Amino acid sequence: MRAYRMTGWGNPPEQCEVAEPTPGPGQMLIRVAGCGLCRSDLTMRQIPRVAGERLGWRMPFTLGHETAGWLTDGTPVALVSPTSCGVCRLCVRGRDNACPDGRAGRGYGRDGGLAEYVVADRRSVVPLGELDPRYAGPLTDAGATAYHAVRRARGHLAPGSTAVVVGAGGLGAFAVQFLRILTAARVVAVDVSAERRAYAASVGAHEATSALGEKADAVLDFVGTDETIAAGVAAVRPGGAFGLIGSAGGRLERPWFGTLPADGEVFTFQGSSIADAQEVIALAAAGLIRNQVQEFPFEKAGEAYEQLAAGTLTGRAVVLL
Amino acid sequence: MRAYRMTGWGNPPEQCEVAEPTPGPGQMLIRVAGCGLCRSDLTMRQIPRVAGERLGWRMPFTLGHETAGWLTDGTPVALVSPTSCGVCRLCVRGRDNACPDGRAGRGYGRDGGLAEYVVADRRSVVPLGELDPRYAGPLTDAGATAYHAVRRARGHLAPGSTAVVVGAGGLGAFAVQFLRILTAARVVAVDVSAERRAYAASVGAHEATSALGEKADAVLDFVGTDETIAAGVAAVRPGGAFGLIGSAGGRLERPWFGTLPADGEVFTFQGSSIADAQEVIALAAAGLIRNQVQEFPFEKAGEAYEQLAAGTLTGRAVVLL
Amino acid sequence: MRAYRMTGWGNPPEQCEVAEPTPGPGQMLIRVAGCGLCRSDLTMRQIPRVAGERLGWRMPFTLGHETAGWLTDGTPVALVSPTSCGVCRLCVRGRDNACPDGRAGRGYGRDGGLAEYVVADRRSVVPLGELDPRYAGPLTDAGATAYHAVRRARGHLAPGSTAVVVGAGGLGAFAVQFLRILTAARVVAVDVSAERRAYAASVGAHEATSALGEKADAVLDFVGTDETIAAGVAAVRPGGAFGLIGSAGGRLERPWFGTLPADGEVFTFQGSSIADAQEVIALAAAGLIRNQVQEFPFEKAGEAYEQLAAGTLTGRAVVLL
Amino acid sequence: MRAYRMTGWGNPPEQCEVAEPTPGPGQMLIRVAGCGLCRSDLTMRQIPRVAGERLGWRMPFTLGHETAGWLTDGTPVALVSPTSCGVCRLCVRGRDNACPDGRAGRGYGRDGGLAEYVVADRRSVVPLGELDPRYAGPLTDAGATAYHAVRRARGHLAPGSTAVVVGAGGLGAFAVQFLRILTAARVVAVDVSAERRAYAASVGAHEATSALGEKADAVLDFVGTDETIAAGVAAVRPGGAFGLIGSAGGRLERPWFGTLPADGEVFTFQGSSIADAQEVIALAAAGLIRNQVQEFPFEKAGEAYEQLAAGTLTGRAVVLL
Repeated sequence: MRAYRMTGWGNPPEQCEVAEPTPGPGQMLIRVAGCGLCRSDLTMRQIPRVAGERLGWRMPFTLGHETAGWLTDGTPVALVSPTSCGVCRLCVRGRDNACPDGRAGRGYGRDGGLAEYVVADRRSVVPLGELDPRYAGPLTDAGATAYHAVRRARGHLAPGSTAVVVGAGGLGAFAVQFLRILTAARVVAVDVSAERRAYAASVGAHEATSALGEKADAVLDFVGTDETIAAGVAAVRPGGAFGLIGSAGGRLERPWFGTLPADGEVFTFQGSSIADAQEVIALAAAGLIRNQVQEFPFEKAGEAYEQLAAGTLTGRAVVLL
Repeated sequence: MRAYRMTGWGNPPEQCEVAEPTPGPGQMLIRVAGCGLCRSDLTMRQIPRVAGERLGWRMPFTLGHETAGWLTDGTPVALVSPTSCGVCRLCVRGRDNACPDGRAGRGYGRDGGLAEYVVADRRSVVPLGELDPRYAGPLTDAGATAYHAVRRARGHLAPGSTAVVVGAGGLGAFAVQFLRILTAARVVAVDVSAERRAYAASVGAHEATSALGEKADAVLDFVGTDETIAAGVAAVRPGGAFGLIGSAGGRLERPWFGTLPADGEVFTFQGSSIADAQEVIALAAAGLIRNQVQEFPFEKAGEAYEQLAAGTLTGRAVVLL
Repeated sequence: MRAYRMTGWGNPPEQCEVAEPTPGPGQMLIRVAGCGLCRSDLTMRQIPRVAGERLGWRMPFTLGHETAGWLTDGTPVALVSPTSCGVCRLCVRGRDNACPDGRAGRGYGRDGGLAEYVVADRRSVVPLGELDPRYAGPLTDAGATAYHAVRRARGHLAPGSTAVVVGAGGLGAFAVQFLRILTAARVVAVDVSAERRAYAASVGAHEATSALGEKADAVLDFVGTDETIAAGVAAVRPGGAFGLIGSAGGRLERPWFGTLPADGEVFTFQGSSIADAQEVIALAAAGLIRNQVQEFPFEKAGEAYEQLAAGTLTGRAVVLL
Repeated sequence: MRAYRMTGWGNPPEQCEVAEPTPGPGQMLIRVAGCGLCRSDLTMRQIPRVAGERLGWRMPFTLGHETAGWLTDGTPVALVSPTSCGVCRLCVRGRDNACPDGRAGRGYGRDGGLAEYVVADRRSVVPLGELDPRYAGPLTDAGATAYHAVRRARGHLAPGSTAVVVGAGGLGAFAVQFLRILTAARVVAVDVSAERRAYAASVGAHEATSALGEKADAVLDFVGTDETIAAGVAAVRPGGAFGLIGSAGGRLERPWFGTLPADGEVFTFQGSSIADAQEVIALAAAGLIRNQVQEFPFEKAGEAYEQLAAGTLTGRAVVLL
């Protein structure tokens, strides 16, 4: 079958022919309909062998961790993006997004969804109902990660409160929508791009602005530079939350005591849980969220990644299989 | 009456004669039995007028924010250390420790408990039952602040987990005790002082060590330097908590993303809530906590502060009135 | 001033002239704009003296516990409907709706809002911003009580879940709206009245039906007969909630073990907290809820009560002052 | 191998020879060390075929749902008592105790632990560390069920509160211990048996009494008759909890509105979660709980059941294999 793969440490990915996978015990075979591309895919070619092996990655592997398709009986399904073991202390408490097994998974060290077929544990398979599996992949990663952030912040967002989303790109635009659906907070999107601000407003932001200028009960930072962290933390009201989702590597050059939100919380994370994915799919199935995608045929996967790298995409790139 | 007071910006405190206070509407008059001394008292003489006035402080004022005594009917009571308005968004949700009114209060910008009498709002008055009011003052600040930290961390401390207390001084030693009473976590105290380690072990720490060396589900840092923050944050397991209570002014010289606890939380705060004070007093009344104090007569308040500054006290200094 | 009052145990209320009240310490004077009428007002004339006195009621008193108006400086405000002390164990934890002082209050044993002026503790006064105080009264009782129910149930209502509201009258119609605003649950309204079903649908119920016929993650029962309790409890999915708000006096004629929701919760309550009132008013101020009222001049208060008793009102009766 | 089995609907169980089981995919083989006996085992011979088949039970099956032993590599383990699927909406949220698959499981409709060998899903296997597997079985059911009740009630039990345990038998005595370990509440045990009261006091009850006579913030009813439900519900303070664990089939002959705890909660459940079992085992491994058992050799399993039925056991019966 066709697959778009990492073939060796430090190599760029390429289109290959590989054998169809066979599901092991407790696994299911999925015929892939579409697979979303993620900015993290672009970094994988830079990961040194020693770092990859420390994470437990095996080379070669097929890219793609935003996958949806059909079971062999035709049921449309999406695949939970992070991997988890299902048996550890965290998994049995519904905190599978922090499972140590999540360091390697479908599309990052194991065969992912940029192929005609992929296999997945039963617990990673979420039925899509009426949703089209060609476009559902991004819900499981860009969507579910943003959802997890909103779920963490939601307890701080009683009616009358304000939420700020810093960075209104793929994840941030999902966050704006989840905030509108699940809270009655005033939602402010902050982005340097006029286009992204306009999109944020179109999906429900009460205000879209280029600079953080008001106090908030929760700030979700999908950028994560020194600047956004400093401004975001300073904007949080007593008892509020600052969530860092953006991986830009920022730090805070200030004493924590007296600077971090008073009796509030700061949190960060990667990925999302099975429950997050289920709930995002439920929201999409109910017609409550807009999932902006740009389609590419499999042959143009390389071109799609180039556009992703260049920042010229409108919406999340989805490769159809 | 006698009072130990800040008499002007930049001046050292001194013993004075002042008029007895008269309770306003909704207030009660308290005959002070004992008042604990706090390290923060020592910093007040350094606060510039402009900074103090920005906080709403009025000069002169009587020191002392760890106060207990008797109502006019003889009922022994302690006074909640932080001030709060009782009507704001935070207060009516039981989060009065973050009330904006807390910037000025009894003993910091208003007349405190180092005097024969003090007045307090009814909601700040907590009955002591059988507890001796001469020694109860420290429960309301050193005790209640440590309690608030433990209460914040407690959700992370299921049986089988580990809690680390960094800094086993006054607050830290309370924290060790609260952790033992309210959780089944293994409790590790970290302190450079052999004496404080011995005390931590005597009040229940399973282990007392000079350096943080194991992973934990919650780390409570009562020191707060760059070093303790870096080591403490690094020690937190996925999903765990790092609480900063120590005011040493440390920061974290690392990127937050990938460094802060994975899907965990970082929190900081000052003070404690009325509920915290009530619960600490309930624990003390039930004989569950040891509150190590060193008594001084009122005439020796200055000497007590000198010993506090020099670090030669054993336990919390309490001035008897 | 004019007031509509209970003049003696067992007597029907009547229009009177009384002196304007004077606010005590910590209290504010409110010029009433409008006051909502509540079904519970109708029962007060049946309460025997011994029962009323056991609750701490004083006779005579002015009716009306859904009050809004203006402070003496013209600020429009609403008054929190239940009374609470602000200092007890429950109040300082934000659970003032369960405060023992709530047994007597404005409009039930104390002078309420069906008068030109009323006094209230500062903490009971919630600013209305742009909202018109003539119609805001019902938000504080019918609105806030329904809100409290939704807030209790909300943790059970993740996306993909179903909420059922039994009884789509004044409170139930508010509950439908709060569920739509604060959750992504499918909302089903159950009512025998076609008119109320139509109204429920018009304010957002996904389905309005005359009989409970599907499983739900939360059932809020605003009726409370044997029948609605039996059907409601049976409809709750494992881990879900059944909330009883309706005071019809029903019971459950079945063994609890094996009948109550598996690892779920059953709750009931009266009234609401200050935080509830603040949040409902924030929702109204944001234009998110419809508050259907029918206006009556003060002279027609008696007629308004008659219509309330007869069930011929459209929306909540509000008496303008 | 030897096994103690239900051989047909309506038949009493008997000792049999059966083939050793073979673990399927994702399963592990356990050499049984000891298996606790449960009162529910005695009822299984009365279950009609139609009821059993409705639950999905298969006849014949080996009894025993309190099992511990060794993996094939010698690791001592206990088996989580309830069965759960690991993939449903409830399981992936850590609420596996309410999983629909729990209706049939090891020892109730499937082969259980009263045999030399048993198989279990990986996620049901909890390492015992230094604990002796011969006696650990009861921790997974009697222990974990009581633990689940305490975990549900714990949020209501701040320092200064009171917890009541009604019925101080096997589960109740565990509950007393968990309450003492995890809360600072005053713990009152209520039991008609002087012997059980003495045991409750010996494991930490502050008071052991024959009749419920004081208000409490949580009442855990391990009996469940009309009488205990009525008295228990009436004893709950505003905002508190009533948990029904006892299966005696009681009901409440009173209107719910005005009778159930004001703004509190009523809950019931069966079984426990994997997390519960892990935490109970962690407590036992830390030496914090006493697990009173009475040993029987396999040949005397029938006699052990007779003593269980007659109420002449001291502690939980454990059959050694």
